[in-house]
Amino acid sequence: MGHIAYINGRYLPQSEATVHIEDRGYNFADGIYEVIAVHNGKLVDEEPHIVRLRRSLNELKIEWPVTENALKFLMREVIRRNHFKEGMIYMQITRGVAPRDHAFPEDAQSSLMMTIRRSKPFDAKAIAKGVRVITIPDIRWKRNDIKSISLLGNVLGKQQAREAGAYEAWMFDENGDVPEGTSSNAWIVSKQGELVTRQLSNAILSGITRLTVLKLAKETGIKFVERAFSIDEAKHAKEAFLTSTTSFVKPIVQIDDDKVADGKAGPLCRALLDRYGSYMDEDTSHT
Amino acid sequence: MGHIAYINGRYLPQSEATVHIEDRGYNFADGIYEVIAVHNGKLVDEEPHIVRLRRSLNELKIEWPVTENALKFLMREVIRRNHFKEGMIYMQITRGVAPRDHAFPEDAQSSLMMTIRRSKPFDAKAIAKGVRVITIPDIRWKRNDIKSISLLGNVLGKQQAREAGAYEAWMFDENGDVPEGTSSNAWIVSKQGELVTRQLSNAILSGITRLTVLKLAKETGIKFVERAFSIDEAKHAKEAFLTSTTSFVKPIVQIDDDKVADGKAGPLCRALLDRYGSYMDEDTSHT
Repeated sequence: MGHIAYINGRYLPQSEATVHIEDRGYNFADGIYEVIAVHNGKLVDEEPHIVRLRRSLNELKIEWPVTENALKFLMREVIRRNHFKEGMIYMQITRGVAPRDHAFPEDAQSSLMMTIRRSKPFDAKAIAKGVRVITIPDIRWKRNDIKSISLLGNVLGKQQAREAGAYEAWMFDENGDVPEGTSSNAWIVSKQGELVTRQLSNAILSGITRLTVLKLAKETGIKFVERAFSIDEAKHAKEAFLTSTTSFVKPIVQIDDDKVADGKAGPLCRALLDRYGSYMDEDTSHT
Repeated sequence: MGHIAYINGRYLPQSEATVHIEDRGYNFADGIYEVIAVHNGKLVDEEPHIVRLRRSLNELKIEWPVTENALKFLMREVIRRNHFKEGMIYMQITRGVAPRDHAFPEDAQSSLMMTIRRSKPFDAKAIAKGVRVITIPDIRWKRNDIKSISLLGNVLGKQQAREAGAYEAWMFDENGDVPEGTSSNAWIVSKQGELVTRQLSNAILSGITRLTVLKLAKETGIKFVERAFSIDEAKHAKEAFLTSTTSFVKPIVQIDDDKVADGKAGPLCRALLDRYGSYMDEDTSHT
């Protein structure tokens, strides 16, 4: 059976779900999105995702397509209709359909689309094998804090990683510092043993998994600092890892051709990975 | 009667033309476009538009959705079916439909969409009234040489112009220089009387009207130089104007709150505007 998607008021077999060719998402990348993990049939970190969605819409002055409560209901309905216990909800909101003109249309109705895909259950052991990242210049725009669908720079970066046989590409700015990966936040454990991730700014997305890991680190008494770090510092770090909704907490064992430390997942990352697994159970254990 | 659009092998009333919600144009801005003027029922500067289209596809490694000859036929067929003499063809090609994943899909089939809209016949006198531009920081990505649909930065800039009651926004880079407008190339006639437009690089689109105007300047014996110029130089210039397929050659009479020279279209711009009008007649008078 094919998946059921939601699109502008209708639930449809995903293969039949379409949008108009003049949807501004299609002509201008004029829209935003969220990806939310489903665990035990429930949404992980629903509230912070909604908070970020609200911020993205505000920054672009895109109207809510439905009320916030309706949006929450629709996500649950998409989960229910697809009978998924483990998966990822993808939700996209655009400024809607209007004759092509760069400036905002006067009276377009925002478009809302939701899909779900099945994913394997969280498996800390498998994730702990770690992955390799490559490093590339950051060619993206200057508002990466907005979770927009203007993702062509990210696409090209991820493709470079794929062609290099790597899992992800870490980007570096004109100072040689790493804002983030093409679809994940970047972390290291410095030589001094300090947990480091880039501070929030227009240069990075405020990842929900990033926020949760910071919260878990705090609760566990792990010291951390939000600051810039360079590719060079990362290559000489004790540990490196990435976080995202779909990748959870993933050790990085090699950066370009350089092993990170002994080339195995480090202890701090593994602890956070295990803790994150428990957190997902806890977060989805009530209502 | 509604317009007829072309979408992936079918001619449809434009209101019924749709694409799948997992078209990568919709999820990732993973596509390119061209806008070509139709004058006297014929395409203006068809060949250079096709050359640029080819380049954009090559840069992004997107396959041609149909052969180049088929593409040319389809444009003519869209013009014919809509019975338009004066208008604009909009053509968009994306990497096609695939399950959402940043890296390129293995086997997607590129999507091709074409629409046409009617426009008023070229009217040099009306255009010569001139327009105002505002100046804003350039927040876009670093591959503006690719005519991609990753246009959210351009959209936000054009909206700023609209809200300021201006026609266009000129962007400035970290040096205070103007690469281009949000949907047009930027020109000045310097204090020294020199015709200036920004040199080609990854920072600007190689506008087809820009190329044609350079060609016409050369033919007419007008000296020009392709180099960077700043907002400040523009504000003190003898003339300023913009070029694009939809705006032709349009005088700028005010930048922010500063009049350009006496606040009227300058003689060089007016000469190029008239010359461009004749050129469109000539370019569409054969085949």
